[in-house]
Amino acid sequence: MTAEDQGNAGMAASRPHADAHLGRLSATGRVEAFSDGVMAIAITLLVLDLKVPDAAASGTNGLLAALAARWPSYIAYLAAFLTIGIIWLNHHSLISKIARFDARLHWLNLLLLLGVATLPFPTALMAEYVGQGGPNASVAAAAYGLLAIVMGLPWSLIWRHLRDHPELLELGVGRAYAGAELRRGSIGVPIYAVATLVSLVLPLVALALYAGVAALYAITSQGGRDPDAATEGHAR
Amino acid sequence: MTAEDQGNAGMAASRPHADAHLGRLSATGRVEAFSDGVMAIAITLLVLDLKVPDAAASGTNGLLAALAARWPSYIAYLAAFLTIGIIWLNHHSLISKIARFDARLHWLNLLLLLGVATLPFPTALMAEYVGQGGPNASVAAAAYGLLAIVMGLPWSLIWRHLRDHPELLELGVGRAYAGAELRRGSIGVPIYAVATLVSLVLPLVALALYAGVAALYAITSQGGRDPDAATEGHAR
Amino acid sequence: MTAEDQGNAGMAASRPHADAHLGRLSATGRVEAFSDGVMAIAITLLVLDLKVPDAAASGTNGLLAALAARWPSYIAYLAAFLTIGIIWLNHHSLISKIARFDARLHWLNLLLLLGVATLPFPTALMAEYVGQGGPNASVAAAAYGLLAIVMGLPWSLIWRHLRDHPELLELGVGRAYAGAELRRGSIGVPIYAVATLVSLVLPLVALALYAGVAALYAITSQGGRDPDAATEGHAR
Amino acid sequence: MTAEDQGNAGMAASRPHADAHLGRLSATGRVEAFSDGVMAIAITLLVLDLKVPDAAASGTNGLLAALAARWPSYIAYLAAFLTIGIIWLNHHSLISKIARFDARLHWLNLLLLLGVATLPFPTALMAEYVGQGGPNASVAAAAYGLLAIVMGLPWSLIWRHLRDHPELLELGVGRAYAGAELRRGSIGVPIYAVATLVSLVLPLVALALYAGVAALYAITSQGGRDPDAATEGHAR
Repeated sequence: MTAEDQGNAGMAASRPHADAHLGRLSATGRVEAFSDGVMAIAITLLVLDLKVPDAAASGTNGLLAALAARWPSYIAYLAAFLTIGIIWLNHHSLISKIARFDARLHWLNLLLLLGVATLPFPTALMAEYVGQGGPNASVAAAAYGLLAIVMGLPWSLIWRHLRDHPELLELGVGRAYAGAELRRGSIGVPIYAVATLVSLVLPLVALALYAGVAALYAITSQGGRDPDAATEGHAR
Repeated sequence: MTAEDQGNAGMAASRPHADAHLGRLSATGRVEAFSDGVMAIAITLLVLDLKVPDAAASGTNGLLAALAARWPSYIAYLAAFLTIGIIWLNHHSLISKIARFDARLHWLNLLLLLGVATLPFPTALMAEYVGQGGPNASVAAAAYGLLAIVMGLPWSLIWRHLRDHPELLELGVGRAYAGAELRRGSIGVPIYAVATLVSLVLPLVALALYAGVAALYAITSQGGRDPDAATEGHAR
Repeated sequence: MTAEDQGNAGMAASRPHADAHLGRLSATGRVEAFSDGVMAIAITLLVLDLKVPDAAASGTNGLLAALAARWPSYIAYLAAFLTIGIIWLNHHSLISKIARFDARLHWLNLLLLLGVATLPFPTALMAEYVGQGGPNASVAAAAYGLLAIVMGLPWSLIWRHLRDHPELLELGVGRAYAGAELRRGSIGVPIYAVATLVSLVLPLVALALYAGVAALYAITSQGGRDPDAATEGHAR
Repeated sequence: MTAEDQGNAGMAASRPHADAHLGRLSATGRVEAFSDGVMAIAITLLVLDLKVPDAAASGTNGLLAALAARWPSYIAYLAAFLTIGIIWLNHHSLISKIARFDARLHWLNLLLLLGVATLPFPTALMAEYVGQGGPNASVAAAAYGLLAIVMGLPWSLIWRHLRDHPELLELGVGRAYAGAELRRGSIGVPIYAVATLVSLVLPLVALALYAGVAALYAITSQGGRDPDAATEGHAR
């Protein structure tokens, strides 16, 4: 912390231009709080997609059979929960690398939050239709995949903007780091594109892929951060 | 930051009256957190207006046709999301200019939050009715426009109050700045008034106007802040 | 702030007993954040009580008539929004007077939040039934009044606990202040009791009383804080 | 606080390894804010399980009878509210003992939040079915009990991880403390297991047990923290 403060002080001294426009740049604290708020709410609203079934309509076995029949909705819930959780963890790491937000970063972050806040909708579609099979199941699963692809866009644009404007980054985080993150963040797009294509014929397989990608990201993000830590260690 | 702290210290020294009434004035931190919370929740609750359609009722094409038929609800969602996002960004900038909240500012801010928190309701009305055409579509679109107009009121009253009580402003932010913001914040009212009138005959055009105004504000707010930054640069 | 820090340091030095049990006492920061979160969410969830009406069921006038017929739900929404807003403002002021939370304060605060979080339920009852008249309207309006009375209880218990344990209060805030707040916080109970009785025969009048009490509290809370500020000014 | 800061400074100096991997470890502040957000939202969303009854369907007594018939839903609401409240209080205490989060702690915390965020679902099941009696009531009550058992798992894993990696703990909080918390946190599991078994034959008794366990935890957590405070007092 003290090391970072010194870094910021030094950075400010060597960048008078940034200081002159200080009024346009804003502290990261409130962006962080607002983003965390939106992600915390979106992740918690997902539970509303777990509907209380009408047991009377399910015949003799009643509630237990009705709950069991809705198993794809639980996997969709877990996949969406894990996805927002991973985005939060990565966002957490992203924000810690940004020294200052300019207007463009504000807007790209808002677009990212738009994707996160919208995720409960295709999740609800999957929860309702993916278990029924047929074209409706494919449409529901494809909707989820398409939103996941779209969500990758602002993420990549944020890292590209940071790569091209390294003065917005924290001291010790440079152009190379932003480039590496840009590549790492783009991995998800082709995976989700394939899963979306799969959803057109095998929606339940696509659902499994969504959950799998989220779980995989969770595991690799742990190992994937080690080199970053090392890089940062060198820089300091 | 250090410059601002010095500014506050100097300001406090020269305003013994403000100190004597310190108990009535409160730190901006918690107002900011509460306001951010309400705006983050309102923006995320909007997704509940995107209803899972009943595919069986939509005939042979099923879910895809049912989703496609609800296209105006997606535009209404985007317009409302963008509107709250813009209000958040401007609120962010507003709070950074306020040194202390008095009781009147607290209440005006609460009225502003009332507008933001209520926005999901006319958005839901539009999502449900604006695509159906006829008088119901007009009523739904007009309801959204009226709320947008009403939301401008506390915003203008806040800046007017700050213009008349510059001692509540941060050092280096003066009467002239508050006056400029008062004018800038009032631009939206006539635009929304026109859009509301348009909604009475062409509700879908009004919907396009709402989305357009939000997008336009997003773009101009970027350039529009530059002069402010310059002004502030002079003041320091 | 620095004055307060000195105060705390001095207080800690003279209270070795409190230090020995430091593990049981917690910083006020996180209580504040959690309380603000619950109140921000409860106040924003109220909008879900404003239901999109089924225009087709409303005959020839359609949506406009259906919306107009639901006018009591808008007053119920405003009354509940204002009530939570006032509780937030007063909670804000309460927390600023507390130096440390013990286990009892934690639980009383949780009970207070239980009341706030539950308020959307009787508000929904009123929104649905109070306009229909008859015994159902009375039941709905009485449910709101009863919850408002119950909500006064933890509030009074908090101030009583603080009056009896002034070592939990900030320096310069004493037994007398807590006693005065205990009296001020108890004013609402008889008013809501009368309104609840009125609701049994005239539910719409009770609704007007709820909204009126909230508005009145809003106005008087402004003037009512002046003497406190003066008291605090003397203490420092 | 100053004592803790000194402690951290001393700890950092004696642990160069931790510093080299600083990029992988993150400040506890944002984890706390996100966790508080999720818990605040989950606890407030519970109110949506209190449904506005259809009075017309309840015969001559109308709304009052319909509300009274739903009494188990109010107990389920109170039990769930109290349960999340207790988890929050304990989480609050947990976080204050953690100096730094590694990737594993992040994931275990996310799993804990998954449990908390999911609680409104079995609560809604109980609210709807536990009063009806029969196998559906048992299924609903057992679902709540099973989730409560599952929620105990990440809690125990967090304390086990902290016991095995005491370098993640705050100065003065050691292996013994984490071991004691691990035992204390495991008490709930057998109690909920018994309640879940009871729910299979007597769902309403299970509901009473859930509410009772929550209330009991609330009372004992007060006394149960005293020895911890003493332990900590010795350590410092």
